[in-house]
Amino acid sequence: MRIAVYPGSFDPITNGHLDVIRRAAKVYDQVVVGVLDNISKKPVFTAEERCEMIRMVTADIPNVTCDRFNGLLVDFAKQKQAAVIVKGLRTVADFEYEFQMALLNKALDPEYETMFMMTDTKYSYISSSMVKEVAKYHGELEGLVPSKLIPKIKEKYNKMDGSF
Amino acid sequence: MRIAVYPGSFDPITNGHLDVIRRAAKVYDQVVVGVLDNISKKPVFTAEERCEMIRMVTADIPNVTCDRFNGLLVDFAKQKQAAVIVKGLRTVADFEYEFQMALLNKALDPEYETMFMMTDTKYSYISSSMVKEVAKYHGELEGLVPSKLIPKIKEKYNKMDGSF
Amino acid sequence: MRIAVYPGSFDPITNGHLDVIRRAAKVYDQVVVGVLDNISKKPVFTAEERCEMIRMVTADIPNVTCDRFNGLLVDFAKQKQAAVIVKGLRTVADFEYEFQMALLNKALDPEYETMFMMTDTKYSYISSSMVKEVAKYHGELEGLVPSKLIPKIKEKYNKMDGSF
Amino acid sequence: MRIAVYPGSFDPITNGHLDVIRRAAKVYDQVVVGVLDNISKKPVFTAEERCEMIRMVTADIPNVTCDRFNGLLVDFAKQKQAAVIVKGLRTVADFEYEFQMALLNKALDPEYETMFMMTDTKYSYISSSMVKEVAKYHGELEGLVPSKLIPKIKEKYNKMDGSF
Amino acid sequence: MRIAVYPGSFDPITNGHLDVIRRAAKVYDQVVVGVLDNISKKPVFTAEERCEMIRMVTADIPNVTCDRFNGLLVDFAKQKQAAVIVKGLRTVADFEYEFQMALLNKALDPEYETMFMMTDTKYSYISSSMVKEVAKYHGELEGLVPSKLIPKIKEKYNKMDGSF
Amino acid sequence: MRIAVYPGSFDPITNGHLDVIRRAAKVYDQVVVGVLDNISKKPVFTAEERCEMIRMVTADIPNVTCDRFNGLLVDFAKQKQAAVIVKGLRTVADFEYEFQMALLNKALDPEYETMFMMTDTKYSYISSSMVKEVAKYHGELEGLVPSKLIPKIKEKYNKMDGSF
Repeated sequence: MRIAVYPGSFDPITNGHLDVIRRAAKVYDQVVVGVLDNISKKPVFTAEERCEMIRMVTADIPNVTCDRFNGLLVDFAKQKQAAVIVKGLRTVADFEYEFQMALLNKALDPEYETMFMMTDTKYSYISSSMVKEVAKYHGELEGLVPSKLIPKIKEKYNKMDGSF
Repeated sequence: MRIAVYPGSFDPITNGHLDVIRRAAKVYDQVVVGVLDNISKKPVFTAEERCEMIRMVTADIPNVTCDRFNGLLVDFAKQKQAAVIVKGLRTVADFEYEFQMALLNKALDPEYETMFMMTDTKYSYISSSMVKEVAKYHGELEGLVPSKLIPKIKEKYNKMDGSF
Repeated sequence: MRIAVYPGSFDPITNGHLDVIRRAAKVYDQVVVGVLDNISKKPVFTAEERCEMIRMVTADIPNVTCDRFNGLLVDFAKQKQAAVIVKGLRTVADFEYEFQMALLNKALDPEYETMFMMTDTKYSYISSSMVKEVAKYHGELEGLVPSKLIPKIKEKYNKMDGSF
Repeated sequence: MRIAVYPGSFDPITNGHLDVIRRAAKVYDQVVVGVLDNISKKPVFTAEERCEMIRMVTADIPNVTCDRFNGLLVDFAKQKQAAVIVKGLRTVADFEYEFQMALLNKALDPEYETMFMMTDTKYSYISSSMVKEVAKYHGELEGLVPSKLIPKIKEKYNKMDGSF
Repeated sequence: MRIAVYPGSFDPITNGHLDVIRRAAKVYDQVVVGVLDNISKKPVFTAEERCEMIRMVTADIPNVTCDRFNGLLVDFAKQKQAAVIVKGLRTVADFEYEFQMALLNKALDPEYETMFMMTDTKYSYISSSMVKEVAKYHGELEGLVPSKLIPKIKEKYNKMDGSF
Repeated sequence: MRIAVYPGSFDPITNGHLDVIRRAAKVYDQVVVGVLDNISKKPVFTAEERCEMIRMVTADIPNVTCDRFNGLLVDFAKQKQAAVIVKGLRTVADFEYEFQMALLNKALDPEYETMFMMTDTKYSYISSSMVKEVAKYHGELEGLVPSKLIPKIKEKYNKMDGSF
């Protein structure tokens, strides 16, 4: 059985992330979405909230699970018995950063191969930080994130209003 | 009448920004410089000071105005009845970021077209953050920003000395 | 009246080119598509055939015309009384090349401003050379070029079969 | 069984290509190396010679085969019953070109997923065209291509001497 | 005598930095490593600790010294009577940033020439921030930094544990 | 004595090339401009004409010489007893290509170090092929190449007229 790990911050998951998950799930027997639990990055959503949102929108894909991790990616991959790390690429900047990370991970543990998938161009402009910028100013989230997450995201930002 | 919005932080306006404004003012009937009033970015100059500096150096260009905005660019453009958003490009990194922003703005409101102009190569190395780095260490600002702003910038940094 | 020139080889025009033409036609009073007549590039379609195809697919846009040119772009722009050169950008490689061309054109005649528009992401992978590669092997052209051009392109390649 | 196609010109195969083949062979059940038989590119080695060299250096990897193809990659992938196309990435220029090709292939046949692997940095400067440049001037080929191919490549270039 | 300045944060020095220092020391008569003492960047190691580590690993290269600086690079270069600034390049992002810095430095003082060296590909994925990420999670530092610095780095992170 | 080789096609030398030569001549004891004599590239000027033009415009720089070479750059550098190869960088595309060449040269002979200099931004849009395009259509060459070469270049293109 080929298990792939798909790591990220997912603060929150976007339609671009979901597209990569769906396509990876066709190519690998199991896909474990790994939510990086790094408080120094000051996420808007807790790691648990982020995993919950991922589980909600991947409920219809049987071979996808989600788990939080803290520490080095190769340690998480080992724990999940994954053979492969999957990453989505949108831009040249993504490419350079992910390339360095893949090389670092290979240096830390030569057993892991990173496989890159292109993000569908119709999602190429979406990033979690842009979603947060739009949410902050009550802009239209339809098309940026899965529809069923919009109430959850709006609720979070309504609570935060005035705290910027 | 074709109105263009030229958005940015302008903390402070540089010779590169001013060059784009001058050239956009030849191509559009009116250019509204939009100063992003985002306190979370911790600007050195207040939005009002930044607008004042822009007005000072564009006083000789009759079809340029300046205004602050807070929120989504498309909302500001709508309020100003602009048809077009203008951005300057210097580097590949600029290009990728501005490309994503233009796509996001098009998704949020398909009515707006972003038109990119190249920054004159003689200003291609100038950014507001480099101006601030030079000012902080009392380096030569001539050539980086319009001459008449230099006393204002020096004064601000003299007050801040010791607070780094 | 603001006239814009949109230059290229258009061998043949793609859905990406047509998208830029449509959007430019909204922003400028007139758009002159300039077909570069450079035999040293060994085009598949003659300049006249290329212009004819462009006229066919832009027949519904009243302020678009097409003309061939041979020589320097700035001379063509002057002849057409254009104030602005329009170019579409898809990739970082496009950006660097077009940037250099825009600077060269500005050096040759400082009067001309080049304005860049982003190609819609859904066309970002389409280039004339890819269209020709697909046509050569009788692949599906739907989605790559305007539908009404497909018979014309197929006919040309059927005649060329065996000559590769 | 997951079959992956790894397409290219391989004129000739380099140590960088071989590294990608070895790593892909660990991740997929079968890897079919597809040698593009495109005479308009004027290859130095015939498609048959190129396949023969690939078979020679992959003889120790049981799940790797090689075949020539002419036409569209998606047609070759279908014929080989492959689910995935594998490509190696070395540079930003590679990335942009391969990205466009992957999108084109997805448009031509949405069934195929392209997975990208990074070329090991120690091979990142090697390309088939550089190998040919070095061979042409009788430079050192050790380290650039598999050792057992060096006599074959030298022989070819000795025959061609004087024809540049 | 040709003196070169090699500036950076070196928080901490990596095998990539050391490789550039060694190679620059062959090409210039003297190399002064300049440690930027910028507390606003919140370094993990003090400027003195960073210089000490650099001196420790360059002890065998007679024409290398290390000094801290605070302020503009051109002022430090002048003080050290250097003719040349040396920088290592790994990626396109490096290239663009360093290019802008080199132009800024040339604008501030036209006397200084910046010479760029490529980082050896086997170190191309190593940056000080990745070293710190690995150290934070007690990952393997061998290969990333000079071996004799590993105990020092581990000790620092052991003291910091629990403070993330 | 530190000798640097500055290799290229120089078909013809541009103001950008001359700027790099002048600046390299300040940093190295001697600069040998190496004109690549590669007929397969179909140059407009013969290698001897190209060297002659370079000698004409560098006559006032005592430590610059010019020579033709055919074959591998490292062999030419060895023959000239050079310690260093100098290259100018303008764009990201330049950077990637030159990076690969530098790595290849280092693999072929580890003794040679390639040092990169930035091309002055005011020449960043000039390349030999653009100069030839402008000359072909009798455009303005002033500013693109050294003034004293303009008659020579015009004469060459007048003879070629009608042969495109």
